[in-house]
Amino acid sequence: MEKAGQLSLRHIDIDEHLGPHDVRIKMHTVGICSSDVHYYLHGAIGSFVVREPMVLGHEGAGTVVELGKEVRNLRVGDRVCMEPGIPDPNSRATRLGIYNLDPAVRFWATPPTHGCLRETVVHPASFTFRLPENIGFGEGALIEPLAVGLHAGIKAGIKPGDIAVVTGAGTIGLVTALAAMAGGCSKVIITDIQREKVNLASRFGMIAVDVAKEDLNDTVNEVTNGWGADIVFEASGDENAISGVFSPLCPGGRVVFIGMPGKPVPIDIVSAQTKGARIETVFRYAHVYPTALALMGSGRIDLKPLVTDTYSFEESIEAFEYASNMKPTSVKVQIEL
Amino acid sequence: MEKAGQLSLRHIDIDEHLGPHDVRIKMHTVGICSSDVHYYLHGAIGSFVVREPMVLGHEGAGTVVELGKEVRNLRVGDRVCMEPGIPDPNSRATRLGIYNLDPAVRFWATPPTHGCLRETVVHPASFTFRLPENIGFGEGALIEPLAVGLHAGIKAGIKPGDIAVVTGAGTIGLVTALAAMAGGCSKVIITDIQREKVNLASRFGMIAVDVAKEDLNDTVNEVTNGWGADIVFEASGDENAISGVFSPLCPGGRVVFIGMPGKPVPIDIVSAQTKGARIETVFRYAHVYPTALALMGSGRIDLKPLVTDTYSFEESIEAFEYASNMKPTSVKVQIEL
Amino acid sequence: MEKAGQLSLRHIDIDEHLGPHDVRIKMHTVGICSSDVHYYLHGAIGSFVVREPMVLGHEGAGTVVELGKEVRNLRVGDRVCMEPGIPDPNSRATRLGIYNLDPAVRFWATPPTHGCLRETVVHPASFTFRLPENIGFGEGALIEPLAVGLHAGIKAGIKPGDIAVVTGAGTIGLVTALAAMAGGCSKVIITDIQREKVNLASRFGMIAVDVAKEDLNDTVNEVTNGWGADIVFEASGDENAISGVFSPLCPGGRVVFIGMPGKPVPIDIVSAQTKGARIETVFRYAHVYPTALALMGSGRIDLKPLVTDTYSFEESIEAFEYASNMKPTSVKVQIEL
Amino acid sequence: MEKAGQLSLRHIDIDEHLGPHDVRIKMHTVGICSSDVHYYLHGAIGSFVVREPMVLGHEGAGTVVELGKEVRNLRVGDRVCMEPGIPDPNSRATRLGIYNLDPAVRFWATPPTHGCLRETVVHPASFTFRLPENIGFGEGALIEPLAVGLHAGIKAGIKPGDIAVVTGAGTIGLVTALAAMAGGCSKVIITDIQREKVNLASRFGMIAVDVAKEDLNDTVNEVTNGWGADIVFEASGDENAISGVFSPLCPGGRVVFIGMPGKPVPIDIVSAQTKGARIETVFRYAHVYPTALALMGSGRIDLKPLVTDTYSFEESIEAFEYASNMKPTSVKVQIEL
Repeated sequence: MEKAGQLSLRHIDIDEHLGPHDVRIKMHTVGICSSDVHYYLHGAIGSFVVREPMVLGHEGAGTVVELGKEVRNLRVGDRVCMEPGIPDPNSRATRLGIYNLDPAVRFWATPPTHGCLRETVVHPASFTFRLPENIGFGEGALIEPLAVGLHAGIKAGIKPGDIAVVTGAGTIGLVTALAAMAGGCSKVIITDIQREKVNLASRFGMIAVDVAKEDLNDTVNEVTNGWGADIVFEASGDENAISGVFSPLCPGGRVVFIGMPGKPVPIDIVSAQTKGARIETVFRYAHVYPTALALMGSGRIDLKPLVTDTYSFEESIEAFEYASNMKPTSVKVQIEL
Repeated sequence: MEKAGQLSLRHIDIDEHLGPHDVRIKMHTVGICSSDVHYYLHGAIGSFVVREPMVLGHEGAGTVVELGKEVRNLRVGDRVCMEPGIPDPNSRATRLGIYNLDPAVRFWATPPTHGCLRETVVHPASFTFRLPENIGFGEGALIEPLAVGLHAGIKAGIKPGDIAVVTGAGTIGLVTALAAMAGGCSKVIITDIQREKVNLASRFGMIAVDVAKEDLNDTVNEVTNGWGADIVFEASGDENAISGVFSPLCPGGRVVFIGMPGKPVPIDIVSAQTKGARIETVFRYAHVYPTALALMGSGRIDLKPLVTDTYSFEESIEAFEYASNMKPTSVKVQIEL
Repeated sequence: MEKAGQLSLRHIDIDEHLGPHDVRIKMHTVGICSSDVHYYLHGAIGSFVVREPMVLGHEGAGTVVELGKEVRNLRVGDRVCMEPGIPDPNSRATRLGIYNLDPAVRFWATPPTHGCLRETVVHPASFTFRLPENIGFGEGALIEPLAVGLHAGIKAGIKPGDIAVVTGAGTIGLVTALAAMAGGCSKVIITDIQREKVNLASRFGMIAVDVAKEDLNDTVNEVTNGWGADIVFEASGDENAISGVFSPLCPGGRVVFIGMPGKPVPIDIVSAQTKGARIETVFRYAHVYPTALALMGSGRIDLKPLVTDTYSFEESIEAFEYASNMKPTSVKVQIEL
Repeated sequence: MEKAGQLSLRHIDIDEHLGPHDVRIKMHTVGICSSDVHYYLHGAIGSFVVREPMVLGHEGAGTVVELGKEVRNLRVGDRVCMEPGIPDPNSRATRLGIYNLDPAVRFWATPPTHGCLRETVVHPASFTFRLPENIGFGEGALIEPLAVGLHAGIKAGIKPGDIAVVTGAGTIGLVTALAAMAGGCSKVIITDIQREKVNLASRFGMIAVDVAKEDLNDTVNEVTNGWGADIVFEASGDENAISGVFSPLCPGGRVVFIGMPGKPVPIDIVSAQTKGARIETVFRYAHVYPTALALMGSGRIDLKPLVTDTYSFEESIEAFEYASNMKPTSVKVQIEL
C-alpha cells in the first residue's frame, strides 16, 4: 500500500534480522481482513494513520525456513501460522497475561508496522504455531479471525448448554458462532440483513435469522421459552444491533462486544441493569492460538467453507479490489504466494 | 401519595394479614430516596405509573411486634431492618439466586405495592434482619442504599488493594465508596460537581475531586502512576460521567453502572474494547443485607454521618418537600415515627 | 427394599397428595445407580441408614397424568424426567441458588424418602422437565447421572479447547467425559482398569488409557506437549486415582472431585500448591437439567449407547442382582415399567 | 550457609553484572523465614538440596545505588523492596501471567540461587518496588510474607463482609489474617495452640481461638449463627488443622491451602463435596507487591508489630540460632545491615 487508495506490487526493503528466539517463515497464504481494506481505502483507522508505504496483511500462514539459535519448539519445514501482534515483554499488561492490551504492541499492518503479505517474514518463535496435519494453509491463515471469536467465547464464560445469539454473520460473526458451538453452546442463533449470509449460516447448523424481515426477539423467545439467551455476541458493529443487544438477553445474561462501531452508540443502560447484564469487550486475543489449533485439529471447528475466494500473489491488487466490494456470497478472500 | 405532586398524611386501608412465615413490624425510621421524590413529583418512573394512592418509602427500620407461627429466626422486640423487595419464590430467577432480577418481585413503593412509611408493616421473616446492638434505627434504614453499593462492590470483584473511582457523591455514590473501602480497596477517588459533596467525601478519607474544576484523569494518573484505576463505579447517572467512564480505567479494568440515566447514553465501545473492559450492571441487590450488617456491626462501615436531616412523622410532607430540593450539604433525609 | 440384602416386589402405601404446584407422573423407566445397589447390599451409605422398608430408584422418566391447579409449564401426556431432590424453598442455601447443598433436601431413595421405582410419583412441577421429541425414556432416566457430569463441567469452568482427563470410565466417568466434550474440550483422556470400559470409551472418541497397563502421565505429556491437562475430573473414587490427581495437571489447572471415596484419602497438598491448582467438589447438581436437555435435544450428547441392560418391572429383583455384579461390558441397568 | 547445620559470615564471590534493565541495591534489612531455618538445619527442602555454599535470605529491603541503562521506573536513592523470584520471561506460565508457577523461576535462597543476606544485590528493576514514605525497611522486608497472605486472599475471592477462619497464627497466619481484614472480611477468626500467639492475634482485632483448649467449630457456629465461615485459610501446615478444614466451612464456601505439610495428609473428600467446597492452593504469589504496598501505604495494613526481634549483620549467626528456636512471643526475626 503506497497511500490511501493506491496499492502496488513491488520490492520493499524491510529489516529482517533473525534474532536468537526468532524464525524465518516463507509465506504461503495471507487473508484479507476488512481492516486491510479500510487502510487501503481510507489510509487510517482511528488514530492509526498510514504515513509511509506499508505492507498489508495480518492473517498469515507459511513454512519455517530458518531458525534462530535458541529456538527449540519448531523445525525447518514446519507448516505454521503466526500471531500478528508482538507485545513488549516488559510491559505491565504483558506480565499480567493480558498482552493484547499492551499499548506498545507491534501488530502487522497497523502503522507503522509492516504486514505479512510478502515473501518471507521474521517472527518470534513463541508467537509461531505449528499447524496440525489435517489443517491447510488457507485454514491456518483463518485462525487469526477465529482467535477473535474464541477470545469472545472465553470472555463470555460459556457454560455447557448455553444458548447464544450472534448479531452479524460476516467473517467475525461466523467464526464467533463456530467458536460458541465448539465451546459448549447447545444452540446458536445468528442474524444478518443479507439473505446469502443467513443461508450460509444455516448450513453450519446455526439458527439463522434474516433481521431485514424477521424479529430476532421472536426467535429467541421461541427457542428459550421466553427466558432469553444466555449470551449475546455483538459481531456486526452496527448501531441498531448494538442498541438492541439487551432485548434478547436472559436475566443474569452476558453480552460481548466484538464489533467495532465507528462512533459512540446510544446504549440504554437501564435495560442492561434490569437484566443484571455483564458486558465483556473484546480486543484481539491472548493465549488463544493453541486453543484454536486444538479445536481445529480435533475436527470441532472446520473453517474450510469460509474460504470463498482465492487469488495468486500476482493478483493481489485485484484481490483487494474484490475484497473492497464483495458479493454477499463471499466470506473470506485470500492470497496464495 | 395521592397522585403526582400531591401528598397527604391520612389513614389508608392496607391488608396486613400475618402469614406463618411473616412478622409484624412497628416502623421507627423511614428514609426518603430520590425514587420516592421522583414518584411524588412525576407520578411515574419509566413504565411504573402510580394509578392509585400509594404509601411511599422503602428504606425502613423498626421493631418486631408479632411473629407468624413458623418464625424461628426473630423474636418480639427485635430491632430490625427489611429488604423492601419480595420475589416470587417459584420463579426461575429466584431459584437461580438472582431474585433481584425476578420480574414478579413486589417492591415497596413501586406501584402497585405500598411502601413502608406507615405505622406497621407485615413482612416475610426471611427478608427481615436483626440490627446489631451498635446500630441505630437511622443507620438501619440506610442499609437499603448501602446494599446497592455493596452489591456493586461484589459484582466488581474487588481484589485487595484495588484503586477505585466513584463518579458522583450523592447517597449512592457515598455508600458505594464506603463499600469499596470496606471491601478491600486501598484508595477510592470520588467525584462530584458540588463543592459541598466533595468536602464531605474528603472527610470520609476518600480522594475527592471537584470535576467542575479539575480533571478526574489527572488525579487518577497521579494516584496510579499512569496505569489507571482498577474499577470505575458510575453512581451519578449523568451522561457526561457515563460517556467518560473508560478514560480513567486501567487495561483489564472493570466498570460498574449503578446510576440510572433517564435515556440512552452514547458510549464509545471501542475505548472500552481497547482496555478489554468488563462492565457490570447493578439493579438493587440480592443476598447483601447480612453482609451489610456484618460490616456495620464490626465497625468497618459507619453510616451515621450520612443522616443529615431528620423529621417527625407529622412533618412527613415537609420532609418530602425538603428532599425535593435539598441543600448540597444534605445527604439523607429521614422520617422518625 | 425391605432391609439390607432383601428386596421384594409388593404393594406399599405412600402418601401421594397432589398439591397445587405438583404433577402426578406415571413412571416408565428407572435406572439403577450404584447408590441403589449400595443401599440394597449394605443398608446404609454413611450416616444415611435405611430403618424402614424403602422404595429404591432416583433416575426416572415417565409421563404426566395429572396436574396440580397452579401448574402452567406442563400438560397431561408430556413425557418428562425429574430432578430427584427437592430442597426446602426457605433455606439459606436454596435462596443462594445452591439448592443441592441444602441440608434439608429430600432426595429419592435416600432414607427416609422413598424412591421412584413404583407406578406413579407426585412431584413438584418446577423439578419436572419435558423431554425433547428425539429423546426416549431410557435416555431421559439417564439425565440424572449426566447432570452430575455437567455440574462437574460447569464447576470446572471449561474454556473452549481445554484438554481434560477423566479418571474412571464407569457411568459417572463416561457422562462426565461426554459433558466435557460437549462443553468445549478439544480432547478428553479417560482412564480405567477394565479393558472393556477402555474400549467403550474409545468408541465415543475419547483417548482411553488402560491404567492397569499404561501410565496416564505419558499419554498426557504426549497429548499436551509436556504442559499437562487443563482439567482433571476424578470420577472413580479410587484412592490411587485421587492421590495421583495432580500429576497430569498443568500449572494453573483445575481438579474436580466427583467420585466419593469411602474414607479419607492421603493427598499431597504441596504438589497441588506448586501447580497453583484450583479444586472443585461436586455434590449432585443444581440448575443443570435444562442444560442437559438442551444438549441432548440438539444432538451434542447421545446417551443411548450407555443403556446396556434393560429389565421389565417384574424382573426388578433380578435387575438389582445383575447390577450388583455386572459384566464389565455393562454400563447402565434400567427397569421399564 | 556452608552446609547443613553450618553457617559462617565471610566473603563470597557472586557474579553481579548489572544488565540494562537491572538495578543494584544496597541491602538494609533481611528477614529470616522458616524456609531459611529449614535449609540451615536440614540442608534441603524436598527436592531442593544445598550442594554448594549458599547465601540465605529472601525477605529483603534496601536502597538503590546504581541503575541499568534502560531503567526508568526507579532512581538512585530510592528505598525499595524486591520480589525474590525471577521467572523466565519466555516460559508459557510467565506469559499466562502465572509467573509464580514457572518451573524455571530463580528464587533467592532456593538452591542453586544465592539469597539476599549480603551487602548488595543486582535485581531486575521490574521486580523492585519503591517503598511508600511511611514504610520503613523492616516492614518493607516483611512484604514478602505478606504477599503470600494477599495472594491467598485474592485466590479466595473475598467478598465484602465475608467471615474468614485462619488456622495457625505464625507469621504466615498473621499476615493472611491481616490481608483478609484489609481485603474486606468483616470478621476473622484465627487459631493457634500457643497462648502467646492467640494473645497477639487478639491485639490485632482478630477473634483468636486457643485450639489447645477450645473447639474452633463452637466459635464459628456462634459467630455465624450456625451457617459456617465463608472462607477457611489453612496457614499452619499441620495435619490436624488440614484434616478439619471443612468442618467450620459454610455451604458453598472456599478453602485456601497455604501451609505446606511435610507429607500427604488424609482428607475427607466427601465432607468437602457435601459443602460444595472450592479449594484454592497458594504457591508464593504473582502481581501482589504493588497491592501490598498500596495497602500498607494507605495504612490499611500495619506490619510493624510483627517485627519482634532485630539483629545486626555481625550477629547474623546468632539471629539464625534464635530463629531456629524462638520464644512463642516472637514472630519475625530480622537482620539489619
